[in-house]
Amino acid sequence: MIQSVDRAVRILGVLQASRSVNLSEIAGRLGLAPSTVHGILKTLQAHGMVLQEHDSARYRLGPVVLKLGNVYLDTLELRSRAVTWSAELARRTGHAVRTGVPLPGEVMIVHHEPRPDGSRQMPEVGLVMPAHATALGKALLAYAPEASGGELRSMTGDTVTDPAVLREQLDAVRRDALATEREEAVLGECGLAAPVFDSSGLAVGAIGVVVPMPEWPASDDVGAAVREAARNVSRELGAPHWPAPGAPDAAAP
Amino acid sequence: MIQSVDRAVRILGVLQASRSVNLSEIAGRLGLAPSTVHGILKTLQAHGMVLQEHDSARYRLGPVVLKLGNVYLDTLELRSRAVTWSAELARRTGHAVRTGVPLPGEVMIVHHEPRPDGSRQMPEVGLVMPAHATALGKALLAYAPEASGGELRSMTGDTVTDPAVLREQLDAVRRDALATEREEAVLGECGLAAPVFDSSGLAVGAIGVVVPMPEWPASDDVGAAVREAARNVSRELGAPHWPAPGAPDAAAP
Repeated sequence: MIQSVDRAVRILGVLQASRSVNLSEIAGRLGLAPSTVHGILKTLQAHGMVLQEHDSARYRLGPVVLKLGNVYLDTLELRSRAVTWSAELARRTGHAVRTGVPLPGEVMIVHHEPRPDGSRQMPEVGLVMPAHATALGKALLAYAPEASGGELRSMTGDTVTDPAVLREQLDAVRRDALATEREEAVLGECGLAAPVFDSSGLAVGAIGVVVPMPEWPASDDVGAAVREAARNVSRELGAPHWPAPGAPDAAAP
Repeated sequence: MIQSVDRAVRILGVLQASRSVNLSEIAGRLGLAPSTVHGILKTLQAHGMVLQEHDSARYRLGPVVLKLGNVYLDTLELRSRAVTWSAELARRTGHAVRTGVPLPGEVMIVHHEPRPDGSRQMPEVGLVMPAHATALGKALLAYAPEASGGELRSMTGDTVTDPAVLREQLDAVRRDALATEREEAVLGECGLAAPVFDSSGLAVGAIGVVVPMPEWPASDDVGAAVREAARNVSRELGAPHWPAPGAPDAAAP
């Protein structure tokens, strides 16, 4: 671990969490000397990774992080494979489709196919949600337990915050290869998701539909379509099996 | 400048340019010892900024860069202001609308309003294009000369690569507060764009339409609509004038 690089990434993390923050706040948050933080900030600023706000001592993330983020997306085979199958899944189910990848304790959306009814929808790529509170996240947690984070933070009244209850839900995900979520992250939104495996057999992502509360529970057909999309993406990624070995219906995808 | 942080960002730059690259290539590209690069890569990898490919010595950008990129977008007031006016501009003109910010020698798209004909269009946010070859870039170069980069690289047979010709075009941009591009970056695509200023009077972005070649030249109404959108976004950002002071029609936006 190179100490100043580690500190630089932690500083980016503070800017990510706080959006706009001044030098002494960053230093305080990380327990570092302001002069240390200043040297790192100026180096990051010279490369466009960080911006200093006009006439202010506040710093924000800079444009270069978005440029890097776009290249990450472009190099993500999961995403290029998911694009086609997401469009098909949205068409079949009438629902918005999200594809996500695991981060520690979180799931990040790497592709978003809007609900095909032509309604105006915010783009969601890059959005991060708590893994335990989303269908996408549970589909990942069931097969990639290292993705689990710390505390099960409550997002809505329906978020599962009891580790024992979550464990039972993850057992069910492994049984059905389908995760469900009922207004656990966002009020009014439910979801179904299934895991995506790559050629090494690891759960590298999840694909799922967003079901508005009035249309919940979704029909079995929707669940079958979600599973089929996840299986198709997994097959294209060279997955040796789907879902995981040991699941009742595990087979070559 | 903190040397190892500077090197870390340069390594991210190599991964951005090369997509997937091994340790010795990175070391060679930057003139660093492989052991130095290795220590920095492992630190970046521990934070999810970099991924090592399965069973390979190759590295790629990791998911955390996208998470940071999304927060950059969320904190960009230009983008939140452009969302509304882009939708209006797309509706009035029937064209796709892009909003961009300057990077050295480049312009990066921070908002993309698809052509309102319901056709399938790739998302463009995070995409980077050469400033001199795009209407968005020329709108910025005319008012923020520090945004100019090095060589005027040819993208199509019509890219302006002669600095004297580009200078004349930028004079015209300052006269009209409108930049034009005719198949200079992508064959079949033309464009019009106008600069956006913030409360400090700096050109912080540009907004413009993408006009397919068969619909080129665009009517004067399209140009007027682009200028109006840029003026409206500038006003919401608190710009003291639009376009720049000294332009024939400079006035409070």
